[in-house]
Amino acid sequence: MQSIQELLERIHTELSPRFGDGKVASYIPELSKVSPEKFAMAIALPNGEVFTCGQSEEAFSIQSISKVFSLTLALGKVGEKVWARVGKEPSGSAFNSIVQLEHEKGIPRNPFINAGAIVIADLIANGHEPSEAIGEILQFIRFLASDENIHIDKSVAASETAHGHRNAALAEFMASFGNLNLPSDKVRGVYFHQCAIAMNCRQLAKAGLFLANGGRVPGSDNRVVTSQRARRIIALMLTCGHYDGSGEFAFRVGIPGKSGVGGGILAVSPGKGSVAVWSPGLNSVGNSLLGTEALELLSKYTDWSIFYE
Amino acid sequence: MQSIQELLERIHTELSPRFGDGKVASYIPELSKVSPEKFAMAIALPNGEVFTCGQSEEAFSIQSISKVFSLTLALGKVGEKVWARVGKEPSGSAFNSIVQLEHEKGIPRNPFINAGAIVIADLIANGHEPSEAIGEILQFIRFLASDENIHIDKSVAASETAHGHRNAALAEFMASFGNLNLPSDKVRGVYFHQCAIAMNCRQLAKAGLFLANGGRVPGSDNRVVTSQRARRIIALMLTCGHYDGSGEFAFRVGIPGKSGVGGGILAVSPGKGSVAVWSPGLNSVGNSLLGTEALELLSKYTDWSIFYE
Amino acid sequence: MQSIQELLERIHTELSPRFGDGKVASYIPELSKVSPEKFAMAIALPNGEVFTCGQSEEAFSIQSISKVFSLTLALGKVGEKVWARVGKEPSGSAFNSIVQLEHEKGIPRNPFINAGAIVIADLIANGHEPSEAIGEILQFIRFLASDENIHIDKSVAASETAHGHRNAALAEFMASFGNLNLPSDKVRGVYFHQCAIAMNCRQLAKAGLFLANGGRVPGSDNRVVTSQRARRIIALMLTCGHYDGSGEFAFRVGIPGKSGVGGGILAVSPGKGSVAVWSPGLNSVGNSLLGTEALELLSKYTDWSIFYE
Amino acid sequence: MQSIQELLERIHTELSPRFGDGKVASYIPELSKVSPEKFAMAIALPNGEVFTCGQSEEAFSIQSISKVFSLTLALGKVGEKVWARVGKEPSGSAFNSIVQLEHEKGIPRNPFINAGAIVIADLIANGHEPSEAIGEILQFIRFLASDENIHIDKSVAASETAHGHRNAALAEFMASFGNLNLPSDKVRGVYFHQCAIAMNCRQLAKAGLFLANGGRVPGSDNRVVTSQRARRIIALMLTCGHYDGSGEFAFRVGIPGKSGVGGGILAVSPGKGSVAVWSPGLNSVGNSLLGTEALELLSKYTDWSIFYE
Repeated sequence: MQSIQELLERIHTELSPRFGDGKVASYIPELSKVSPEKFAMAIALPNGEVFTCGQSEEAFSIQSISKVFSLTLALGKVGEKVWARVGKEPSGSAFNSIVQLEHEKGIPRNPFINAGAIVIADLIANGHEPSEAIGEILQFIRFLASDENIHIDKSVAASETAHGHRNAALAEFMASFGNLNLPSDKVRGVYFHQCAIAMNCRQLAKAGLFLANGGRVPGSDNRVVTSQRARRIIALMLTCGHYDGSGEFAFRVGIPGKSGVGGGILAVSPGKGSVAVWSPGLNSVGNSLLGTEALELLSKYTDWSIFYE
Repeated sequence: MQSIQELLERIHTELSPRFGDGKVASYIPELSKVSPEKFAMAIALPNGEVFTCGQSEEAFSIQSISKVFSLTLALGKVGEKVWARVGKEPSGSAFNSIVQLEHEKGIPRNPFINAGAIVIADLIANGHEPSEAIGEILQFIRFLASDENIHIDKSVAASETAHGHRNAALAEFMASFGNLNLPSDKVRGVYFHQCAIAMNCRQLAKAGLFLANGGRVPGSDNRVVTSQRARRIIALMLTCGHYDGSGEFAFRVGIPGKSGVGGGILAVSPGKGSVAVWSPGLNSVGNSLLGTEALELLSKYTDWSIFYE
Repeated sequence: MQSIQELLERIHTELSPRFGDGKVASYIPELSKVSPEKFAMAIALPNGEVFTCGQSEEAFSIQSISKVFSLTLALGKVGEKVWARVGKEPSGSAFNSIVQLEHEKGIPRNPFINAGAIVIADLIANGHEPSEAIGEILQFIRFLASDENIHIDKSVAASETAHGHRNAALAEFMASFGNLNLPSDKVRGVYFHQCAIAMNCRQLAKAGLFLANGGRVPGSDNRVVTSQRARRIIALMLTCGHYDGSGEFAFRVGIPGKSGVGGGILAVSPGKGSVAVWSPGLNSVGNSLLGTEALELLSKYTDWSIFYE
Repeated sequence: MQSIQELLERIHTELSPRFGDGKVASYIPELSKVSPEKFAMAIALPNGEVFTCGQSEEAFSIQSISKVFSLTLALGKVGEKVWARVGKEPSGSAFNSIVQLEHEKGIPRNPFINAGAIVIADLIANGHEPSEAIGEILQFIRFLASDENIHIDKSVAASETAHGHRNAALAEFMASFGNLNLPSDKVRGVYFHQCAIAMNCRQLAKAGLFLANGGRVPGSDNRVVTSQRARRIIALMLTCGHYDGSGEFAFRVGIPGKSGVGGGILAVSPGKGSVAVWSPGLNSVGNSLLGTEALELLSKYTDWSIFYE
């Protein structure tokens, strides 16, 4: 049996001829500046060990991966009341679709599509100023990763704000159904800043490890969430974590994950460990193309699939 | 630690005050005749042992649970080519919706909604007579359950045929996009008969055990499917097995399952075992109300959730 | 002021360089065999005079234009009860869309989309054999045109039947909501045969003249329908007569009309007269390209627009 | 034959037992304060005569009726280029639906639904300050009515702004597709103020008379628009003027009109005259209930229906 480090290198080697595949996100100028050739991967184990390959110390925009952390934070603040304002079902449509919001009276399908994450940001802000909520989310992620050196990329946040009409539409639409407390520009402020958090794969794998570890901080008995809540969050990652490619990801990879348009994916295998992968080129539904393939190889070479007998 | 038998009796006792809850399916007269008070549960272990409680020897109409077996059969016949004609994504809508079929040019979202199962029936028939395909499906299920005493309920099949306009519409609609080989009435013949198969919980748990057992026939090294294929089938069960309640089921129960409007659910926990539960009253999205609760209790009292660390 | 005959010749001359423009319908083989170069136009006046140009004695498949006559017949048979089973609103979508049928519980938006016309055919049949209803529709059109020499093109009817999966889907879908009395194959038999009626422009202009003439048979005081009913039928033609191009047609032409995929359009200007035009090439929403332009020129050179002051 | 004045009084008398029927708009508090018992009607003839009944000197909020005037103004400014940014087809859905905007890439179906009118407001503003555009629209309406005593109801405008999330969503959504030049809050400023214009029936009938008069200012040869443009505007009123009740209105009334949620309707019969009616109670699709009935009676007692032979 190979070591984790050998496994990472095997995956890196197998995929290296294809580095640059996929289409880098271009809806905001800042994201399109990233080199498509980048590739990094990190695996964190419950014992605290972290293994890496590629540009694993280089920070990238985590974008929608932040939704996992903000959901966890919101559940900690208001508990299961979260589910009165956001659903738990796969959306069956694109990440920024507004159609289902109309059919379902302003209740987003799940917390991992944009509309759902905006509601979660509103829950965290709880009527206070955006800067407080942003600070709270950032501090939470730093705590999870045990790393103070995690920051918001200001130029990405500014770029999101300048090109955020679609998210503004989602926010105003939900406000029209009474499903938003903060004014829409303020809640978008929270949302855009959480998406603009920059992390490297090492930090991201560490930050997500509690979900693979029954809700416990790695190497301690301190709990971030209960074991049941950890299970529920990763269940949502499995069914809703990759937009309209969630079914395909579960089918091919079988490890709960959440992707971001920055090309990152955070995946967690309960009891086994957490994985962060980064490759900026996206597939047709907006998930990292090689990031998905890397996780498929991980699933093939290990027993980390949750569907493994 | 309690035994499996004690676990079943505990669940039975906890739910017994609520027997009769939910709404029995009434879209075909035959189904509405079933007593809502029925409750049965069976658990099969990889070593071949089966434990039961309630009316576990009483047969009920498996309805959509048959889609798991027909998908397995179709994958065996044509392999991954199945996915050219049916998708792998949760539908985000009701089990018999025709809306998405129009947007997606006659390709059903997944094999577990009605439209998808009709395509699978067409694949199995492969242009031959309906009776052959029906016989093949029935034989396959008998083989999986090691039980020749499994039959098609003729009155249910006749009732489905007489009230099957919606499924006829789905079939004709797919035919208009060229996604059907058999004439629509013939393929519906296959589909209606597979839905009308009657099984009891003991038989159903045994028939589904190969999926919990890495694709192997319980107690032998003979394979029904490869381990990878078994994982993929149960991944689809998790993301798509409960219509528009699949996300909620994954969140609350965390065990891949497939429900039928007859009130049955087949669930499989990889490496642990398979469970069949039957309670005719349905919840608002068409899944067994107490069947879901029974599985939630099972998940609570054991480590069978695939999200368990 | 020019004569009607001069007007027709002017339009014919202006459009002749473009004969062949547009795309001939190909969804059934029989229609695709028609030469795209054909062009004919006929105008009938309330005094009974008929003027023509082009191949005005050559019969073509009237297709959806038949819906005007079947609606008139159904209103005569059951009166305003028609509107319990079909709406009066423009559809905002393609002629054969099934999406709105799902949202509106099996009630088609209007009698001029396919689903609506199928309901009208069912109303005419009133539970009797298709052949009776077909005969009734044909006799009604012969009576309106004062011409026994109008027939059903059997090869077109056969071709429709063989390629009619989409219409079968619409029929089965409505049946699932209880909005159909005849079995779906029988009602489709009526519908396909009425669409396969072949007429030339002279016959068609004469058959539609009662609608321009306050409901009266031209040259007599005999009424086909009351003046109010004639107004209502042509109001529906204006708002719904050209599928999802109805708004554009009202904007550019301003004369109530009904198009068919055979390339024909019947238009009526109340108090002025009726026009039939035929040019097989269709525009992007399925209406005759040059037929529409011919009517736009007619509107430009006369005061036949109903929006004319 | 009765005089116009007698006609108005006959309609007033027939409807008076039902004054108060329907449901007054309540989505903004200011509108809900209006007494449902109000009823007024005014008819203006091409010779400049105006006849009235009821509270015809009492101003009400014209709301969406303003869309007729803003469309006319925008056509005067940029001509047919308007149609690159807004369609001409009935929407087949509610006045504030966002669903079709997604399917049609940010191009509203027509200028009389909210999204379309917001684009028209953006065209009028042409990148300048909202106050200029608002002033221009107001001046245009005063000119058409020959009445300087027409004002914007500031409290209604403020109320619209405070409750305008749905319109904000529509604006942001179109901005995300590049179909808006002004920032969304500024264009909404224009839109909310034009909707808050208050007019009485006498003023409204006079302001709309040019559309019945081939585009000419009543009693002069000065043109507001060409005869062709007048015809095109009223064609749009017929097909799209009453939201998802446009087909029904054409069927029952047969006079091009535009309704507002303030309970007003402006209708124009080409060559005959213009009518303004006001009754605050709305029907299920958001059009004045008794206003529609009053116009149906007008159509019944006269030859003003455009479908009249």
